[in-house]
Amino acid sequence: VKNILSNSNRLLIIGSVAYDSIKTPFGHAKNALGGSASYFSLAARQFVRPSIVAVVGEDFKPRDLKTFQKFKVDISGLQKTKGKTFRWGGEYSFDLNSRTTIFTELNVFEGFYPLLSDSHQNSKYVFLGNIHPKLQKSVLSQIRQAKFVGLDTMNYWIERTLPELKAVLKLVNLLVINDSEARELSKEHNLYKAAKKILVMMKLNSFLIIKRGEHGLLMFHQNSIFNLPGYPLEDVVDPTGAGDSFAGGFMGYLAKSGNITFENLKRACVYGSVTASFCVEKMATIQLQKISLIGIKERYIKFKALTNLGA
Amino acid sequence: VKNILSNSNRLLIIGSVAYDSIKTPFGHAKNALGGSASYFSLAARQFVRPSIVAVVGEDFKPRDLKTFQKFKVDISGLQKTKGKTFRWGGEYSFDLNSRTTIFTELNVFEGFYPLLSDSHQNSKYVFLGNIHPKLQKSVLSQIRQAKFVGLDTMNYWIERTLPELKAVLKLVNLLVINDSEARELSKEHNLYKAAKKILVMMKLNSFLIIKRGEHGLLMFHQNSIFNLPGYPLEDVVDPTGAGDSFAGGFMGYLAKSGNITFENLKRACVYGSVTASFCVEKMATIQLQKISLIGIKERYIKFKALTNLGA
Repeated sequence: VKNILSNSNRLLIIGSVAYDSIKTPFGHAKNALGGSASYFSLAARQFVRPSIVAVVGEDFKPRDLKTFQKFKVDISGLQKTKGKTFRWGGEYSFDLNSRTTIFTELNVFEGFYPLLSDSHQNSKYVFLGNIHPKLQKSVLSQIRQAKFVGLDTMNYWIERTLPELKAVLKLVNLLVINDSEARELSKEHNLYKAAKKILVMMKLNSFLIIKRGEHGLLMFHQNSIFNLPGYPLEDVVDPTGAGDSFAGGFMGYLAKSGNITFENLKRACVYGSVTASFCVEKMATIQLQKISLIGIKERYIKFKALTNLGA
Repeated sequence: VKNILSNSNRLLIIGSVAYDSIKTPFGHAKNALGGSASYFSLAARQFVRPSIVAVVGEDFKPRDLKTFQKFKVDISGLQKTKGKTFRWGGEYSFDLNSRTTIFTELNVFEGFYPLLSDSHQNSKYVFLGNIHPKLQKSVLSQIRQAKFVGLDTMNYWIERTLPELKAVLKLVNLLVINDSEARELSKEHNLYKAAKKILVMMKLNSFLIIKRGEHGLLMFHQNSIFNLPGYPLEDVVDPTGAGDSFAGGFMGYLAKSGNITFENLKRACVYGSVTASFCVEKMATIQLQKISLIGIKERYIKFKALTNLGA
């Protein structure tokens, strides 16, 4: 195990492992394996062997541990503590564009304090899932020399812990947020103006990805912009985890290729979007567990044709 | 004049010429030259000499006739009849995503019955603006042998004159509608499913363009899909006429190049979008009157870079 972990592309995700209860117009799931670290790692496993740092309670099922092991996700950083696993319940509107949280039971996640093992401290690619910016910063301070650090956040932290969020923004290479979060963080409605302001909050030569749901994403870097549409899907069953699957596919491809140029980050965007396009076709993580790299590569080619303008 | 008109690329637009009163959060205009035929022809004039077939009232100002003449728009088909010119007043919301119609005075437009001159009957490229499907069909029956016919419509006709609309759909090469119209016409929420259904309503090997506002457009043809994002704009002042400018730039480029393959229609989409991106930067038709083909070509190149995925 140690040998596999000590490759230079090691990818670490800090986030949540949860039990989700989801209702969509097309299906439902109860206590399904969820949380950002679960979706991220099951997406990234197509490209590298990801390591997760997260916490679960005593009720965490051996079945779900086995799922991670089956897909060679390194769970040596998955702490088990007294109490219950984080639980979330949500319901989607008919058009899947809005969702209502039915309940959030933080449980053991409330006391989560990520302490990295010596091995994890050597990670080169790190993704800081959507947790308190203070914890994100504390994780970063434990990393010895990362090559590329990505960050997720949400409106909750923008509204409540803006100074802490701004402090961690200065330390990362990539911020991945959605359009409404970008507007709130920058206080600009126009996304191109918003992006300019946010890039200034980050360190020099950083990257910003603004996700626009079914409309795809925009990536900003210096004076360059890249626009990727949403992958054309006729049947979306469950949008849960789409963002985390995107991040997992994106960071997984990046870690595997070891190339952090803008051109290669564009490719990572496509791999991330394709991985997420599979995720939303079935409830919870079902499809992420099923798909293979061959299927992903097929959609990658279709995606290129979709936007190809030729000569 | 006759010589210029009798080239094989002649482009005809049937639509409205109106006086618009517009209020947006960033400006206002009173009795500004507007209507689908005005925006369309002032966009298309970058590529070809367009002909308009429309009606105005006795109050139509010589100043506005001169505008068309200045840009070499053929107005031999612009009827002047007793009564007042079509007037429309509208106001936009702060984010420009929704607008309220303050008033619609059809005036002379109510009795509009397009009768084509012998010269116009020989048009090769025809765009049927958003008028009653019966009138659209009557115009088509006057055209001798078109090479490519585009059609615009709106929810109003989908709801009130569906059989007539379906009859004209069978006769055209291209339908250009927005996402909500596509959903209403197909009774499908998912745009990819909607497109499949709509293509079946049209004749074989037709094209369908679904506009998604700031999110760009989707073009469908047989089993192919093309996705073009919105052109990145930081300052939109007035969205009025964006759809008609798109159609004008699109059909203008198509008529000029004389090539109706899917690959060339993709380029036409970019030219249409670029032309529309200029239109919305100033009130009414101000910017369409100012821009040159050089400016359009500059944005064309930027647009390609925006979506270019490289090798």
